[in-house]
Amino acid sequence: MTTYKRRLNLNVGINTTGYLGNAWKYRTGTREEITDPAYYLRLTQLAHRGRFDSVFFSDHPALMTDPNSRPFHTIDPLILVTALAAQVPDIGFVATMSSTYNSPYNLARRTQSTDIISAGRLIINIVSSFNPAVAANFSNEPLPPRDVRYAKAREFLDVAKKLWASWDPRRAGEVPPERFWDASQAQAIEHEGEYFSVKGALNVPRGPQGHPVIAQAGASEGGIDLAARHGEIIYCNILSREAGQAFRKKVFDRAREVGRDTSEIRIVPGLVAIVGETREEALRKHELFSGAGSEDGLLARFIRENGLDADTFNPDEVLDAQRFIPDPNRIMAVGMGLGLSDLLAHEKLTARQVVRRSEGHHRLVLGTAEEVADQIIDLWADGTVDGYTYQPPRAPDDIEEFVEKVVPILRDRGVYPTEYEGKTIRDRYGLPYPA
Amino acid sequence: MTTYKRRLNLNVGINTTGYLGNAWKYRTGTREEITDPAYYLRLTQLAHRGRFDSVFFSDHPALMTDPNSRPFHTIDPLILVTALAAQVPDIGFVATMSSTYNSPYNLARRTQSTDIISAGRLIINIVSSFNPAVAANFSNEPLPPRDVRYAKAREFLDVAKKLWASWDPRRAGEVPPERFWDASQAQAIEHEGEYFSVKGALNVPRGPQGHPVIAQAGASEGGIDLAARHGEIIYCNILSREAGQAFRKKVFDRAREVGRDTSEIRIVPGLVAIVGETREEALRKHELFSGAGSEDGLLARFIRENGLDADTFNPDEVLDAQRFIPDPNRIMAVGMGLGLSDLLAHEKLTARQVVRRSEGHHRLVLGTAEEVADQIIDLWADGTVDGYTYQPPRAPDDIEEFVEKVVPILRDRGVYPTEYEGKTIRDRYGLPYPA
Repeated sequence: MTTYKRRLNLNVGINTTGYLGNAWKYRTGTREEITDPAYYLRLTQLAHRGRFDSVFFSDHPALMTDPNSRPFHTIDPLILVTALAAQVPDIGFVATMSSTYNSPYNLARRTQSTDIISAGRLIINIVSSFNPAVAANFSNEPLPPRDVRYAKAREFLDVAKKLWASWDPRRAGEVPPERFWDASQAQAIEHEGEYFSVKGALNVPRGPQGHPVIAQAGASEGGIDLAARHGEIIYCNILSREAGQAFRKKVFDRAREVGRDTSEIRIVPGLVAIVGETREEALRKHELFSGAGSEDGLLARFIRENGLDADTFNPDEVLDAQRFIPDPNRIMAVGMGLGLSDLLAHEKLTARQVVRRSEGHHRLVLGTAEEVADQIIDLWADGTVDGYTYQPPRAPDDIEEFVEKVVPILRDRGVYPTEYEGKTIRDRYGLPYPA
Repeated sequence: MTTYKRRLNLNVGINTTGYLGNAWKYRTGTREEITDPAYYLRLTQLAHRGRFDSVFFSDHPALMTDPNSRPFHTIDPLILVTALAAQVPDIGFVATMSSTYNSPYNLARRTQSTDIISAGRLIINIVSSFNPAVAANFSNEPLPPRDVRYAKAREFLDVAKKLWASWDPRRAGEVPPERFWDASQAQAIEHEGEYFSVKGALNVPRGPQGHPVIAQAGASEGGIDLAARHGEIIYCNILSREAGQAFRKKVFDRAREVGRDTSEIRIVPGLVAIVGETREEALRKHELFSGAGSEDGLLARFIRENGLDADTFNPDEVLDAQRFIPDPNRIMAVGMGLGLSDLLAHEKLTARQVVRRSEGHHRLVLGTAEEVADQIIDLWADGTVDGYTYQPPRAPDDIEEFVEKVVPILRDRGVYPTEYEGKTIRDRYGLPYPA
């Protein structure tokens, strides 16, 4: 890994019609294609054209049946990724899966299988599931409390790592001609823990990456701990340099505490980019794609979402950061709310400014292609982030626009590749191979 | 389905080096390719050339680490099948999976996803798992007793069928332009049963086959009941016409008892075929591939496996059928042992005859390509079976030989197609689409 030269890493989210719930009204394509594998193949080919490191699928194993919303998680991500990997070369795949509602043996086996099939292009995004609608699909037990879910996730990944390493062909010795194999290359793991009891060995051998790259997204205390122990790619909400550096320090400090080398960790937050011919055009697109319709609409949404009093609220007054710290016990993913409070902890901002700094909880960058590229490079150049997970408001439209307009500028600035280099995700992210 | 003309259905098993544990010594190819997806792609392309209806993967979620054996189940079957379906057209895929060690929501979602990706080419072979080594990979609880496993399997498939039908785009009404979808096309299933509690709806819509075709393999009383209730393709051990007709009657009688139309059921037992230029050559190949080395070796194995006394046993004396009825409480899959006792229940045979009637518990057909083809057609022609699941002693060698030598004869006899007809497995097997 000594030859790895730091460069901007970019992933792209390709769930259904794009990241923003209201932007589908302005996209190209049919509604039916959200369950059509051929659609995801086109999106992946488009992402490949843009030399994205990976396509990213978030997930919940539940159907949200709000008639005013849209189904956002449908075809099983690992199944879809496996089919796409068989058809599109080079590019990596992030598949989200729950440590609360899977068994370690099955999950370790399936993911190692896909990593082998894709020749080392799988990233698994392990989530602990926060939605009661998910729990109801698996039993009549309620969702376990957050601390139990994270403790279980931690042990889940401990077990998975043992399983991924349990059948290692590199241990095989000489095999006499009457035998098929040296069975001692596979060793039982005999795991007996608080949540799991797994004998092993896994019946899939060590894959081309040692094991799939592990992504982690939680930003609660439990999430930070899990990221520090097991995360290799951290997906998060970072709205400013100061907030990003504080987050990075928090994860890295915890990683050192548990004895981990922080050079094994990449921070690749979500990013919503909206490109216009002018900044004004980008602002108007933001108002449309967000569903707010206008700047007043964005402010009205801000007031509503934060439970403020519309009659007395002044959108041009500096906001009080304390007011926006989310309740750590709320059911929703804690990380989604932390972005805003972390932003306000470091910058004095009015609501009118804040509504242009994030969309869908992620950093929003608005403007011409040059302005967007500059803002992307800005936090990367000094090491605040290692790259971004671009969440296009609309798919395919905003991916196309990004590939055609922003990517060439990133290349001109010398921070982004023109061709795929290396073979695996570990090569592309400069991540070490597990011993 | 009124246009369906009965014809011979053929699947082919493509686990690792072929069906017989000792035949790898005589095969073409490396040992390492058993975990190489490119190898399974070549086997599937070969099967496609032979116009097989499907390739079949048996499975255990455990690694058998007997140094004198070989790993027989490795890459996750559904993951592998998904990648193969993305690369090879037309042919179907049987993926084996456990109802004891999966959750209905995840399994229904994954399989519906693969059925969509393959455009209706998935068959799932639901097994209840009989191996304690499997249980040890999932908890420190022992394997549940057989009756519990089958009761659970029955409810598992009840739940899966409800989930597969729960999001049905055919229910969608008019959608006003400001809405993305008619959410009432998805309906919760609210299943509360003895083993499972699942709310639904599934977040993957109804697939091209309504739901994947369900294969079922058990031959114990619980297995017969499950096959009768849910099985569409029955994989089994049938060693003779009389035994096959008795088995068919047993399944059909039970199916009628539970109110099912028996025209929805196809019986496609396992078959081991060994082809020679002459019958003598086929006999010698059988002795080699079985690992027995000679006819005396086959007899010695028969004596050993059945716990007989080698000193007093006469291989040319008619066997006593009663002696070979397997203990219904044994741990091993009951069906595997029933083949022999069912054979002896209807025919008076000596051990010397019996050792040439089955191999790896399945019907063995030996001889020239013509003789093999005749024996295949024989039990199909009068409706005893609807086809076979060919288990090649060696892969790829015996699949190649079958495709080159036996398939043309089956075509000449007018029982087997030259091109794929229809699009889905249901079309090819003449199975109805779920309402």
